[in-house]
Amino acid sequence: MKLLEEVLGMIKPSEEERRLINEVIREVVDIAKAEIEKVESEVTLHLVGSIAKDTYLSGDHDIDLFLAFPLDYSLEELRKRGLELAKAIGNHFENYEVTYAEHPYVRAIYKGFDVDIVPCYNVKSWKEVRTAVDRSILHTKWVIEHLNGRNDEVRLLKRFLKGINAYGSEVYVRGFSGYLTELLIIKYGSFLKLMENIEFLGKIKIIDLEGWLKKEPEIAYKTIEREGEKPLVVIDPVDPRRNVASALSWEKFGVFYFKAMELKENLKLEFFFPSKKKIGDYKVLLREKGTNLIVILFPKPELVDDVLIPQLERSAKGLEKSLKKEGFEVFDLNWGYKDKAFIMLEVDRINRPRTKLKLGPEFLTNRALDFYGKNQKVWIRGKRLYSEKVVEEGVVEVIENLFAKDQISLGKNIRESVKNADILINFVPHELEEEAYLFLSKEKWNVKA
Amino acid sequence: MKLLEEVLGMIKPSEEERRLINEVIREVVDIAKAEIEKVESEVTLHLVGSIAKDTYLSGDHDIDLFLAFPLDYSLEELRKRGLELAKAIGNHFENYEVTYAEHPYVRAIYKGFDVDIVPCYNVKSWKEVRTAVDRSILHTKWVIEHLNGRNDEVRLLKRFLKGINAYGSEVYVRGFSGYLTELLIIKYGSFLKLMENIEFLGKIKIIDLEGWLKKEPEIAYKTIEREGEKPLVVIDPVDPRRNVASALSWEKFGVFYFKAMELKENLKLEFFFPSKKKIGDYKVLLREKGTNLIVILFPKPELVDDVLIPQLERSAKGLEKSLKKEGFEVFDLNWGYKDKAFIMLEVDRINRPRTKLKLGPEFLTNRALDFYGKNQKVWIRGKRLYSEKVVEEGVVEVIENLFAKDQISLGKNIRESVKNADILINFVPHELEEEAYLFLSKEKWNVKA
Repeated sequence: MKLLEEVLGMIKPSEEERRLINEVIREVVDIAKAEIEKVESEVTLHLVGSIAKDTYLSGDHDIDLFLAFPLDYSLEELRKRGLELAKAIGNHFENYEVTYAEHPYVRAIYKGFDVDIVPCYNVKSWKEVRTAVDRSILHTKWVIEHLNGRNDEVRLLKRFLKGINAYGSEVYVRGFSGYLTELLIIKYGSFLKLMENIEFLGKIKIIDLEGWLKKEPEIAYKTIEREGEKPLVVIDPVDPRRNVASALSWEKFGVFYFKAMELKENLKLEFFFPSKKKIGDYKVLLREKGTNLIVILFPKPELVDDVLIPQLERSAKGLEKSLKKEGFEVFDLNWGYKDKAFIMLEVDRINRPRTKLKLGPEFLTNRALDFYGKNQKVWIRGKRLYSEKVVEEGVVEVIENLFAKDQISLGKNIRESVKNADILINFVPHELEEEAYLFLSKEKWNVKA
Repeated sequence: MKLLEEVLGMIKPSEEERRLINEVIREVVDIAKAEIEKVESEVTLHLVGSIAKDTYLSGDHDIDLFLAFPLDYSLEELRKRGLELAKAIGNHFENYEVTYAEHPYVRAIYKGFDVDIVPCYNVKSWKEVRTAVDRSILHTKWVIEHLNGRNDEVRLLKRFLKGINAYGSEVYVRGFSGYLTELLIIKYGSFLKLMENIEFLGKIKIIDLEGWLKKEPEIAYKTIEREGEKPLVVIDPVDPRRNVASALSWEKFGVFYFKAMELKENLKLEFFFPSKKKIGDYKVLLREKGTNLIVILFPKPELVDDVLIPQLERSAKGLEKSLKKEGFEVFDLNWGYKDKAFIMLEVDRINRPRTKLKLGPEFLTNRALDFYGKNQKVWIRGKRLYSEKVVEEGVVEVIENLFAKDQISLGKNIRESVKNADILINFVPHELEEEAYLFLSKEKWNVKA
């Protein structure tokens, strides 16, 4: 596979890069160890993540230092003393900031490298896991024990997933995490074997590398049941309660599936390094398509992505549902933020008729008598009552009225922001022009691009 | 009930009217008997229908003469010799014509009265019934035996049903037949008792006056099962295989139900003699409503109503379904004929965007790979594939294309007529102006009018 070698040439860290990283890591570890001995001698230091597993891509080297506290610390103690220790270590680096996931942790920069310093519990098995990050040490250990020199295969898969925009389990990607790519390589042996087995994988859906279905059937089956609607259930080798592919969306699995099917036919560099998408004028595109763009624009709320993105999604889908009910066809949705947060909807029209059909209940019910009494004109089709009403014609008034009457399901932390948002029709501010084009042209999600 | 007496005063035949009718009937019967003796002495003559049962309304007196042939005649013989005999009788009247239902029969006029002369078998029980009209003699006999002087109650119910436009089992009414009104009065004892029991009737749904559920449970239950989706199942007292309310639509039962509920509250003359609907300008109405009218107009096919009307309905519903798929909202449908046959659709718009969303199959299927291969842009939402395509914008072109590709389900006997029809937008010929107004204003079907 000459092409895969060519790809590897671009993504595999060189000897020089390795030396540099190892040197930096040694220094970081030394600094951390010294600080630990000074302050919290019971803490064990762990290097985790893709550098520890040697599955990182060239140029892509975040250092993950985990500070593992004994299990007899309370969560509160862990949080407090963990953060203090992390800060003490961060103080030795160029600069650092405190970031929040489930717990606070420290992000620092040392010699140009990002260093995450994360407090956790020193767990030996899944039964001891208390916080979301506790498993990382177990993950790293398990992968190192099972990867058997297939590190470059992981690199190829990671690069492929990056190329098709399906790498990362973050909420704005919902793709494949690094750990998931490692497990897929361990399962199938190589990048190409995984590609060959893609249809099979889509059908079996379940991967159980540690045999949890035998060792802990009750727990493992519960996991499968809970995660059954997901595209993949990869039972975590270090914890039968967890689906490693839990964050993977059907959309991203679908992109993976189709791109793998294409790659099997025709292995090309573009899968790993796609050419940049051409951007055109969204206004010209709107005229060509004959559709309309509604943009809900508001100051970005101060929320972490894990909260903001799902709530934007929920609000966008609430808008879609309500507008459909109101007689507008919604072609597609888009949400996110640049300087401001936005929700975009591509719709068929921005004006509807002044008259709207009103669906009533079936008759022979009390609700039907009520409907009959309340409406001036009532007619019957089948068993169902109908009437009609006068409504606003313009979509902006329709949305404003829906907001005013709280008839749109919106994300709860952003509800007020959305309700006070600007509603733009067929126009976006400069910072969203590219986004609007990618959205309307479908290039943003076109699997065949 | 002074009001009901007032109504009866208007609808009950006077002594003078009765005398006239009895005289005419005697003459008609004498003519028919003489002809029978001359030609087919085995035939028995029966007077059936509302005159025989004395449940006719003043001014409403069709005479139904049935020529009952012995059961040993073949269907072919019955048809041939029955028509010959009916014609021979008809020859004595002012003029006559041959009409076709299941069998040919004769419609004649005598002294200004319509006389139907219908050949049938001389059946003594349902087990002998061979043609649709054979039961009429049994019906007349059963009603006469059970009506017990409640003839005027039947008259009130008939007038009420005429007032609310729900009288008649013809295909363009789909309401209550005369026989059904008689059975309802026999069941409930009087017009007002029926009104009082209307909700109960809607719930029990089943009426079994002859106790067929006990006498012939298997056959009667089969009838109930077959007719279970209808608003009422009135097992025919003379034939457990038949639902007397089979032709009754949910729409007409619904009108009956709501009007009865209103009448219970406030007994008014308008229920029996509604004032005429005011007709306005359909073009003004269209502008007010902001909706659009599509009219499919074509020469009336030479088909009897029983064939034409259901096929117009089927074609109208086929058009509705296809237009909905194409992105047009269809508010309501109307069909029928004056000089020409027509289908009317009230829709939200007459132009749609040039771009149409294309729903694909779910992926992980062969159909999905096919869809993926065939479309230039493909994206995924959930498990489903989507694409988009360029389409015609104008509804006339949309309909013409659907016709050309045979993508609309049309009544088979009128398919070619419909496909070659004129398609008018927001315009109707003079003869349909009133129809268009009643349709668009909903006055045609407004139960509350």
